[in-house]
Amino acid sequence: MSKKVVTFGEIMLRLSTPGYQRFVQAERFDVTYGGGEANVAVALCNYGLQGTFVTKVPNNPIGQAAINHLRRYGVDTQYIARGGERLGIYFLETGASMRASQVIYDRAHAAIAEAGPEDFDFDRILDGAVWFHTTGITPALSDKAAALTEQALKTARAKGITTSIDLNYRKKLWSKEKAREVMTRLCQYVDVCIGNEEDAEATLGFKAKGTDVTKGELNLEGYQDVFRQMREKFGFKYIATSLRESYSASDNGWSALVYDGNEFYHTRKYEVRIVDRVGSGDSFASGFIYGLITGMDMRQAAEFGVAASALKHTIPGDMNHATLEEVLQLMKGDASGRVQR
Amino acid sequence: MSKKVVTFGEIMLRLSTPGYQRFVQAERFDVTYGGGEANVAVALCNYGLQGTFVTKVPNNPIGQAAINHLRRYGVDTQYIARGGERLGIYFLETGASMRASQVIYDRAHAAIAEAGPEDFDFDRILDGAVWFHTTGITPALSDKAAALTEQALKTARAKGITTSIDLNYRKKLWSKEKAREVMTRLCQYVDVCIGNEEDAEATLGFKAKGTDVTKGELNLEGYQDVFRQMREKFGFKYIATSLRESYSASDNGWSALVYDGNEFYHTRKYEVRIVDRVGSGDSFASGFIYGLITGMDMRQAAEFGVAASALKHTIPGDMNHATLEEVLQLMKGDASGRVQR
Amino acid sequence: MSKKVVTFGEIMLRLSTPGYQRFVQAERFDVTYGGGEANVAVALCNYGLQGTFVTKVPNNPIGQAAINHLRRYGVDTQYIARGGERLGIYFLETGASMRASQVIYDRAHAAIAEAGPEDFDFDRILDGAVWFHTTGITPALSDKAAALTEQALKTARAKGITTSIDLNYRKKLWSKEKAREVMTRLCQYVDVCIGNEEDAEATLGFKAKGTDVTKGELNLEGYQDVFRQMREKFGFKYIATSLRESYSASDNGWSALVYDGNEFYHTRKYEVRIVDRVGSGDSFASGFIYGLITGMDMRQAAEFGVAASALKHTIPGDMNHATLEEVLQLMKGDASGRVQR
Amino acid sequence: MSKKVVTFGEIMLRLSTPGYQRFVQAERFDVTYGGGEANVAVALCNYGLQGTFVTKVPNNPIGQAAINHLRRYGVDTQYIARGGERLGIYFLETGASMRASQVIYDRAHAAIAEAGPEDFDFDRILDGAVWFHTTGITPALSDKAAALTEQALKTARAKGITTSIDLNYRKKLWSKEKAREVMTRLCQYVDVCIGNEEDAEATLGFKAKGTDVTKGELNLEGYQDVFRQMREKFGFKYIATSLRESYSASDNGWSALVYDGNEFYHTRKYEVRIVDRVGSGDSFASGFIYGLITGMDMRQAAEFGVAASALKHTIPGDMNHATLEEVLQLMKGDASGRVQR
Amino acid sequence: MSKKVVTFGEIMLRLSTPGYQRFVQAERFDVTYGGGEANVAVALCNYGLQGTFVTKVPNNPIGQAAINHLRRYGVDTQYIARGGERLGIYFLETGASMRASQVIYDRAHAAIAEAGPEDFDFDRILDGAVWFHTTGITPALSDKAAALTEQALKTARAKGITTSIDLNYRKKLWSKEKAREVMTRLCQYVDVCIGNEEDAEATLGFKAKGTDVTKGELNLEGYQDVFRQMREKFGFKYIATSLRESYSASDNGWSALVYDGNEFYHTRKYEVRIVDRVGSGDSFASGFIYGLITGMDMRQAAEFGVAASALKHTIPGDMNHATLEEVLQLMKGDASGRVQR
Amino acid sequence: MSKKVVTFGEIMLRLSTPGYQRFVQAERFDVTYGGGEANVAVALCNYGLQGTFVTKVPNNPIGQAAINHLRRYGVDTQYIARGGERLGIYFLETGASMRASQVIYDRAHAAIAEAGPEDFDFDRILDGAVWFHTTGITPALSDKAAALTEQALKTARAKGITTSIDLNYRKKLWSKEKAREVMTRLCQYVDVCIGNEEDAEATLGFKAKGTDVTKGELNLEGYQDVFRQMREKFGFKYIATSLRESYSASDNGWSALVYDGNEFYHTRKYEVRIVDRVGSGDSFASGFIYGLITGMDMRQAAEFGVAASALKHTIPGDMNHATLEEVLQLMKGDASGRVQR
Repeated sequence: MSKKVVTFGEIMLRLSTPGYQRFVQAERFDVTYGGGEANVAVALCNYGLQGTFVTKVPNNPIGQAAINHLRRYGVDTQYIARGGERLGIYFLETGASMRASQVIYDRAHAAIAEAGPEDFDFDRILDGAVWFHTTGITPALSDKAAALTEQALKTARAKGITTSIDLNYRKKLWSKEKAREVMTRLCQYVDVCIGNEEDAEATLGFKAKGTDVTKGELNLEGYQDVFRQMREKFGFKYIATSLRESYSASDNGWSALVYDGNEFYHTRKYEVRIVDRVGSGDSFASGFIYGLITGMDMRQAAEFGVAASALKHTIPGDMNHATLEEVLQLMKGDASGRVQR
Repeated sequence: MSKKVVTFGEIMLRLSTPGYQRFVQAERFDVTYGGGEANVAVALCNYGLQGTFVTKVPNNPIGQAAINHLRRYGVDTQYIARGGERLGIYFLETGASMRASQVIYDRAHAAIAEAGPEDFDFDRILDGAVWFHTTGITPALSDKAAALTEQALKTARAKGITTSIDLNYRKKLWSKEKAREVMTRLCQYVDVCIGNEEDAEATLGFKAKGTDVTKGELNLEGYQDVFRQMREKFGFKYIATSLRESYSASDNGWSALVYDGNEFYHTRKYEVRIVDRVGSGDSFASGFIYGLITGMDMRQAAEFGVAASALKHTIPGDMNHATLEEVLQLMKGDASGRVQR
Repeated sequence: MSKKVVTFGEIMLRLSTPGYQRFVQAERFDVTYGGGEANVAVALCNYGLQGTFVTKVPNNPIGQAAINHLRRYGVDTQYIARGGERLGIYFLETGASMRASQVIYDRAHAAIAEAGPEDFDFDRILDGAVWFHTTGITPALSDKAAALTEQALKTARAKGITTSIDLNYRKKLWSKEKAREVMTRLCQYVDVCIGNEEDAEATLGFKAKGTDVTKGELNLEGYQDVFRQMREKFGFKYIATSLRESYSASDNGWSALVYDGNEFYHTRKYEVRIVDRVGSGDSFASGFIYGLITGMDMRQAAEFGVAASALKHTIPGDMNHATLEEVLQLMKGDASGRVQR
Repeated sequence: MSKKVVTFGEIMLRLSTPGYQRFVQAERFDVTYGGGEANVAVALCNYGLQGTFVTKVPNNPIGQAAINHLRRYGVDTQYIARGGERLGIYFLETGASMRASQVIYDRAHAAIAEAGPEDFDFDRILDGAVWFHTTGITPALSDKAAALTEQALKTARAKGITTSIDLNYRKKLWSKEKAREVMTRLCQYVDVCIGNEEDAEATLGFKAKGTDVTKGELNLEGYQDVFRQMREKFGFKYIATSLRESYSASDNGWSALVYDGNEFYHTRKYEVRIVDRVGSGDSFASGFIYGLITGMDMRQAAEFGVAASALKHTIPGDMNHATLEEVLQLMKGDASGRVQR
Repeated sequence: MSKKVVTFGEIMLRLSTPGYQRFVQAERFDVTYGGGEANVAVALCNYGLQGTFVTKVPNNPIGQAAINHLRRYGVDTQYIARGGERLGIYFLETGASMRASQVIYDRAHAAIAEAGPEDFDFDRILDGAVWFHTTGITPALSDKAAALTEQALKTARAKGITTSIDLNYRKKLWSKEKAREVMTRLCQYVDVCIGNEEDAEATLGFKAKGTDVTKGELNLEGYQDVFRQMREKFGFKYIATSLRESYSASDNGWSALVYDGNEFYHTRKYEVRIVDRVGSGDSFASGFIYGLITGMDMRQAAEFGVAASALKHTIPGDMNHATLEEVLQLMKGDASGRVQR
Repeated sequence: MSKKVVTFGEIMLRLSTPGYQRFVQAERFDVTYGGGEANVAVALCNYGLQGTFVTKVPNNPIGQAAINHLRRYGVDTQYIARGGERLGIYFLETGASMRASQVIYDRAHAAIAEAGPEDFDFDRILDGAVWFHTTGITPALSDKAAALTEQALKTARAKGITTSIDLNYRKKLWSKEKAREVMTRLCQYVDVCIGNEEDAEATLGFKAKGTDVTKGELNLEGYQDVFRQMREKFGFKYIATSLRESYSASDNGWSALVYDGNEFYHTRKYEVRIVDRVGSGDSFASGFIYGLITGMDMRQAAEFGVAASALKHTIPGDMNHATLEEVLQLMKGDASGRVQR
């Protein structure tokens, strides 16, 4: 029986221009579905756990297609509520070289943003789970969504389920002030905190000195300082972040830093040629979580997470379809990319 | 110098599944843009008039792409306001045989639904125009949109510009009660009233006895009765409707009935093999309007409109890309479909 | 809790040429998955039952993709065995007018054909099920597959589960002699027997006088005679067949004949414009089964089945993605194909 | 050893809009290659003869791709000259219902139009051939092309090779006056004359009374009268024409009339649902020629030709990819379009 | 009111193979439209000026589609003449690594090459314009086109409009001797001269010592020497060139050198990962022109031009769809390619 | 008259996911055909020799399409036998960065694996040939295929035709033990032996010390040692290997080492950005063979081979569509990738 992991958040319809077309050129969109917590659920299913995703989608074929996409990859969708006005959408244009990828969100009024406590019985949903995961995007969707997130985290904590959050600040959804107020409240129920580079500052107010995210340089000392502060304030068991060095929209350096209150560990760094970098943070989170659930030590879990997410950069769509074997193989050091026959 | 015709309403992003795929099967969407009044503007440009479309679109590349789509076909877009939250979307699945085409609207909170009087200076916009056209969809979008529609119609009337409205009832946008209240108010400024089969009843309360729209039978006597009532109440100069006989989603009979308070005229009926029937009502309206603007008598204008819209059924997308020559040729009777070399 | 229905058979990779291209023209294939019993499982899930599909697929990404396709549409895949050499493939070229669709099977050595009793614990698999369904294709795959089919039917019978079989003769898989020997043995465990036109003769030796399947004429008297013989010999509770009148590869007449030992009932006949007729027999079977499971009488169940399968003809792929509501709507008589907004 | 048939003419790059898109909508073109005489060569190869196509194409990859297309389907391309400015192009938009398909030719200055006697050694090319075929398009390309055509026909006649011509008038290439002058000269070397409906009048001045090609009605008496005149003047061994009844761009009636100076024979008529009707005349010609070469009598040859070309209407592209078996099967009467498994 | 810029030249139908397919592999072509001066007009519209493009296209749907493509991106097309034989075509195959992109021109006999003085009233066309731009391709098309170019330049000079030319030598269109004769005559009316690497020598006879364009090394001293000679002979106000270092078909270095008779300025150099490099020279020219029109100094204008054209390399098609904001952002130094949300 | 080269082996249907999609994401496959010896035949045709490919394919349209693919590129297919069960298939997923390309073979029971001596008359097939080539894949298919390979090599040797083999070990087809037994027997008839890196050890037991193929480092000394042993044992006239340095799935170093018993020669090394690396070994073999046939010395032939195969990496599909001119141009040193107009 696979271990059950519950994630809670939004799944969106993703509409992306083919190839490197700009929005104004597109006559068709490639269609897929994604969202931070959904991406984590899928990746965990790929590795053999029972990902369970909780959200609300409209009661129409577009909502059904989102559910179908999750089911296709093995996610347990039985707790997804149906109703509301619409499924959130995001439009994606893939960049190259010095032209950045561009995302246009059209997620206001999504069913999940307007869901309420009547839609989810978290006590039942979390029954038998070993882990609960969400991100800073979900509470940013609406006050109701923030309340639901808090309820889910509280329930998990009460049931002795490990909890994790990916800070993921989205400036178009809420202000830093609002984010800090809510996220500070939520983080008291969190065991494992994952934060992309600029998120720790925006959502929790901790400042990593000297990291200019447009430059692509790492400032490990600054990170360590921030992690220490976060640990001190919230008592997180693990703090982790992926570290991106953005040489260009086509090539990035990719590694991770983790901290357990004791040791800082900086993983191997991968040089990635990017196919699709959307969801790479989620693929790190899911890999790190997988490692911890299956008994890896922090270093191994971090290496698993960063190898998994390096592979994600080469896969179209939001979700990581790298297999367990592929991640383990890459962790062992084979990045030669020789044909597998 | 081409004659200027102004139309006012919404343009939406249209996302359709390729071939006859159902929504739950689709991995890509064909992308185009459309909306009742925009479709009329494009068709009029095709025939040589200066279609001018007025709406509001968001200030992002999706909004820009909608404008670009209009410009591509010659529409004057200079009066389109920029701003607001999002562009309305509709999803389309093309039916066949006994499976109906399905439309899912995701148009709430569109920029045009939330536009206000500060966005449009109708006095300037309508300057020099010979015709103003809108539909019953626009006032259904929101109270603000209804107020703008009324303002546009009033201004047109004040400037002596001929006005037309296509009743187009959309039950997901408003109730019959609300529709009747608003549309009755608007119709006092209208010269030419165009109504698809079920719209007259829903929006104005006139009932065509004995027409079951799911049967595909025509009840011309019922229509005539309704037209007489409409004429009596609103004094429309012309009342027109396309008449669809829905044998199946693949094959329809298509004709039109027009009335000038004096004569009822039922056009030639076309048997159409359907490629894409979305926008066929708009293509009839634009054809009929074109005929009247260019001095055809009612019968000719109706024949032009119905020939134009028969052709529309064979063209993918919302908009009619039949040329003036092709419509005139079909009016003359050549429906043989022989290759043009 | 949805009622559990188990189906057992093969799922194949389906590779079809786009549009109406011939095989020798194709530079790409559209990819989907299908097979008689899998198609039934999917359709039943669409209607709200818990379809459960049992097969064996190779332990590689192509096998995984077949499972994913089933999961996408809600099928319980937990009993699918993994291993063996390959997934069966069929190539499809869609015909039009007088050019017939062409299917090339490449299914020899498929995992399911070489599966054995160690792969399936039918006692556990059938636990809690209300219905078991298979087809005459499964026992035709190999002697081992025939033995598994018999074991499944026997187990179902022993557990008091209603059983059905779709005769489905495939001349490339076995001879009539072999078919008759095996199918006669299997039919003793069958409650509901479904037979396409030429199958009853090939697999059971019952002859419908006067039906030339290349002509498209129905011979209801002949069918009735055959059904009576079948009932007499096997004691089937219901015997059913869809009835195709092949006017051309583009247009067919479609109805069904059912018999309960008492009454013959010939359903409404649909004139279908064909998009994809592969799997239409399965869609009739699944509709008829759905009706019987949910308490419809024989006439209603047959009308449900034939309406469901009429809709299937308009949907690309092997599987029927018509919804319960759409089938019920069509049963009520609305075949007008008017746009659903 | 297959019998060698030589055809001489132009092969063009064909650029067609996908689906039913109009030219002004297209963002991609489907690419294939075709031309009357090339189409005949391919069809004959499909039936097992050695089609040999003679033309001139530019010495660039586009010219090479045209040659490759012919080689793919088995045509002997060794006598194709290389050089000149460009490959002729034609653009195709596929019509439906009352909207006709549209062809835009961009063939001026093509290599074959500017080829000269130095490019082809017809004495060597025709060595061992049993049949030579060309069309009225080739001499219309240019005076040089007309001279080459005459030389080819003369050489064939001198070598005792049966010759055929498809009259094929193209009004954009030459006037009726010019056509009549040239074609009258060429026809003295012709054994088998094939003429689509309007071609006989345009190129040879024979008038079929009462046939309005836009109506879709046949006037067999008129045809018989014309055929008698043609026979009288040129002594053709066989005169043949396909007969199209254009109900619409989607549906046609299709049959053929042949004459051997003795008997008029009107073939079975097929009702065709059209996928792509370009090249259907060539598919009739190639079928009729195939029949005569392989010893069928005139009636059989005509039935073979008309069955072959009925099938062509269902196949995308210029060329007929129906197999010998399929044509023979259809001749025997099976037009039911049942799936071939 | 946007400033009006007029450009004059050819627009061609561009047919490119998808992905990295070679011509002999292609079964479809991606369709777009482009040409040096048209590309400049579109880019200027993107930045907010009123690009106005002058050419002649055939009076058929292919010509119309070219116009529509320009209108889509905001170009004023009112002065485009209609008529002539055909639209020029170019075929494009995109290279990678050591395989160069390949262009096959099929532009002879294009409408613009055969246009005459009756087609354009440059006095009216240039009315109100602030800038006139053309390239060395236009006069190379034909003697008539050269005469038209001279007339346009003369008219612009007479009206006090700033003029620019991009030398753009095309060896398949004319000899160096012919080019030098004509371009020397035209350059007397030119204010701003833009020359890609090998063009200055071919069209004007100025030789940049030591630049081997197949090597990818820059020889700035050589360029400066040539620029001094050009300035001396023609008195150009500005001379500019983009500088390409061709490491491979996939990766280039990209910068620019400008000269105002006083100072030589070499811009920042971008390392570009190439998506589509066709039109990159035009994107530099349009950026540089934009800068000068809007009051940037020479250095800023050059940096704007080179940033704009660096971005162009990442965009499919001939035309630069980078926005003003994106170019300015890149000029400021952010080439990190981080996702824009 | 072109020189005739015969190659013998398998051609497979290749089904590849578009873009960088993983198998579990794919909804369509790109279709082409390939196989080691077929790829060599096509490349030799491209260079002007008469490639002649010998295999067996099933007598159905998929088998025909494989033949057509070869004919398209000029291969003589007259000796291909028809019959057997199926065409072998391989599925391909293209990797990027650290994610390797993945190949799934589904080639068991292919027609060629079950062909017998009755299918091929090698004495006639090899008549007039100057070279015979095969690979270590063919004898690995089955014992019957190994016997046929031996017969072909023996016949070639007897007729004085130069023979070559590419060792190509496929671990899924046979064990090292079996491979060594068979290949040792076959190599006695071989003049030119080509071995990719790991093949010499697997198939012949010669061990290159210190080459870890997952690392991407070359060990030229080890190779030289192996080549000396191979020469000593089998007396090969030439031994050659391409040398791949796998930096990642996107970027490789590519060169070759050749040996004539006297001199070792290591070619120029290319840094390749990979589009499709399948078939690159075959493109080296065919280039090297072409060089030797046309009288190049060993160094030139090796440089030709490595330049040809560097280009192959940039071309989609198994086959090398680089032209003779392009290879010669690259050999001369121009790897700048500048646009060819």
